[in-house]
Amino acid sequence: MATVRLLPHAEASPDAQRVFEDIKRVRGVDDVNNFWKALANSPALLQGVWSQAQQAMQPGALDALTKELIHIAVSTANGCEYCIHSHTAAARAKGMTDEQHAELLAVIAMASQTNALANALQVPVDEVLKK
Amino acid sequence: MATVRLLPHAEASPDAQRVFEDIKRVRGVDDVNNFWKALANSPALLQGVWSQAQQAMQPGALDALTKELIHIAVSTANGCEYCIHSHTAAARAKGMTDEQHAELLAVIAMASQTNALANALQVPVDEVLKK
Amino acid sequence: MATVRLLPHAEASPDAQRVFEDIKRVRGVDDVNNFWKALANSPALLQGVWSQAQQAMQPGALDALTKELIHIAVSTANGCEYCIHSHTAAARAKGMTDEQHAELLAVIAMASQTNALANALQVPVDEVLKK
Amino acid sequence: MATVRLLPHAEASPDAQRVFEDIKRVRGVDDVNNFWKALANSPALLQGVWSQAQQAMQPGALDALTKELIHIAVSTANGCEYCIHSHTAAARAKGMTDEQHAELLAVIAMASQTNALANALQVPVDEVLKK
Amino acid sequence: MATVRLLPHAEASPDAQRVFEDIKRVRGVDDVNNFWKALANSPALLQGVWSQAQQAMQPGALDALTKELIHIAVSTANGCEYCIHSHTAAARAKGMTDEQHAELLAVIAMASQTNALANALQVPVDEVLKK
Amino acid sequence: MATVRLLPHAEASPDAQRVFEDIKRVRGVDDVNNFWKALANSPALLQGVWSQAQQAMQPGALDALTKELIHIAVSTANGCEYCIHSHTAAARAKGMTDEQHAELLAVIAMASQTNALANALQVPVDEVLKK
Repeated sequence: MATVRLLPHAEASPDAQRVFEDIKRVRGVDDVNNFWKALANSPALLQGVWSQAQQAMQPGALDALTKELIHIAVSTANGCEYCIHSHTAAARAKGMTDEQHAELLAVIAMASQTNALANALQVPVDEVLKK
Repeated sequence: MATVRLLPHAEASPDAQRVFEDIKRVRGVDDVNNFWKALANSPALLQGVWSQAQQAMQPGALDALTKELIHIAVSTANGCEYCIHSHTAAARAKGMTDEQHAELLAVIAMASQTNALANALQVPVDEVLKK
Repeated sequence: MATVRLLPHAEASPDAQRVFEDIKRVRGVDDVNNFWKALANSPALLQGVWSQAQQAMQPGALDALTKELIHIAVSTANGCEYCIHSHTAAARAKGMTDEQHAELLAVIAMASQTNALANALQVPVDEVLKK
Repeated sequence: MATVRLLPHAEASPDAQRVFEDIKRVRGVDDVNNFWKALANSPALLQGVWSQAQQAMQPGALDALTKELIHIAVSTANGCEYCIHSHTAAARAKGMTDEQHAELLAVIAMASQTNALANALQVPVDEVLKK
Repeated sequence: MATVRLLPHAEASPDAQRVFEDIKRVRGVDDVNNFWKALANSPALLQGVWSQAQQAMQPGALDALTKELIHIAVSTANGCEYCIHSHTAAARAKGMTDEQHAELLAVIAMASQTNALANALQVPVDEVLKK
Repeated sequence: MATVRLLPHAEASPDAQRVFEDIKRVRGVDDVNNFWKALANSPALLQGVWSQAQQAMQPGALDALTKELIHIAVSTANGCEYCIHSHTAAARAKGMTDEQHAELLAVIAMASQTNALANALQVPVDEVLKK
């Protein structure tokens, strides 16, 4: 259960409905995901997040799949169940292979372990890394 | 200050020295970073981490730069100062441009925000994402 | 499933039962929440947490609703499902409006994003902020 | 040391300079903080974050000081040194008293402890909290 | 639902099956847990994690139960539901009493609270602690 | 720099001074650490934390050193620099050997890695672990 109602199209405000329509058009889907239905309780927040998501996740100097992998990495470190599911699905939809997924997991595991060790040891940053 | 002594080559055990030599050879550097000097207090841990790092970070289905970006993303979410510095430097050494860095930051920012919102709203995972 | 049994009143120790009675009296409820039934496996911990909760959450220089909002913010950053649900419900019971909830979410989202960016950039604290 | 150069006004792009001018005007300060100088390496990110910060932190259904307290709470849970310093200073500038600060700390401490206990016990969310 | 298929023995690769057999033999169980069935999608990762788990968790200078308690502590701070369940069960299987569990919880609660306070206060490390 | 003044004995309130005296007596030290001097800005919080610390960290079903190891584990996962330093020093003062420290680090590294993998894979908890 969410901490707010998930608003279906019919119950969303006109502003929220316009964002829903935009999401469906851009993504070529029939309905928006629960995340957007939850955000629709605040049309301003819904609009802001959708707008920033489009800008941040679009291909540029990094391609769209690489951006999804980075999103999964952050979501995993933050333990966000919803985000891990939705961005793993998005990465697959953008072509992530099983081999790429396995290597992503190996890097996430490695980094998590290294983060913990560097923290526990309180390793000072090398001068050569600070330029 | 670290919570252990940073062992220079001369004070490391023969097993640790062998790992130091291997790191210097593989990376083409004159000395190993503080992280390895701190780990050298436990030669078994030093050997294990170095071995896993090589395997996890080598190019495969994902290229070496993409792996560094993922490492930075996890380290940022975990707030590991040492790791953020060392892997940002490593990514630059592997060719990360300023534009790529800026886009990495934008995705990390977006994901961090989305993680918080999905958690605060406790959004249930859509059935369509669970297959 | 919890990692311990949730103790109903009849199975709790006399000390735990006294805390249960106190919680029900102070909060004007017929039964205590699962959190307290889980803590009842350690009457000392139950007593300590209940006591500290009352002191920390009571109105003082900050009003009770503001304290609930702060509690939701911390629980969201820590990804605690139980706490997000229970303190969102508590905030509503203390008068949190939908508009206040939406603004709370916007601040949490903003802070989460800013935290990630400041970490990734390793921004040094300005001298003027350190006085 | 930051992982990017902190751009002073003279080295920032015209787009970044316009944001700097806006920050100085809105906040009534002579220079912008290091956070903005670091973000200036990506004028688009600088513009987006500044814009969202203004919207999220302005007084509305919650007053400006309450929003700063929430920001401190999230930043503390995420361990962001820069953000804790800058938003504690901002809260003081907006009138936070020592008593309010002490109570904020007590709530953050309480919530952090409760989060850990609810996680360790894996307490199931009460049905009554899920409506 | 996992983000990958949980591979039963019959669908795992020969390499993964060999690890499954080893886990069953070492632990004296009839089937492996879901964690290993998920990891089996990457036999190399499965092999690496199992190997490191055996080495890290075996009795040495610290006994096996103490190591499980430490594992629960880390998993709680990271909010890993699966790990909290599996390592609480493992600790019980290795003899953890209810009293020990209660004291573990009290230390985790104390540490979580202290971490938050030290972060919020940005307490500088005492010179005497840095030697 | 802390976000509050570190109060030396002479500037602390009589209530805070009494706690300082108690800490010095119990620990056999000449002066209290910075953490307590920072907390002294809120004598109530100082008293509460000191009191809970004594209760949580005293030997019982778990010995004092094991409790310090658990504290280090939580502090590492939460990235609390001050706490990692102070509790590593406390563990050493209570007899932690270099071998024990190395094994503690290995378990923390293992757990951090496993947490990340279980989160990324969203492994469902086995029925057998839920009883």
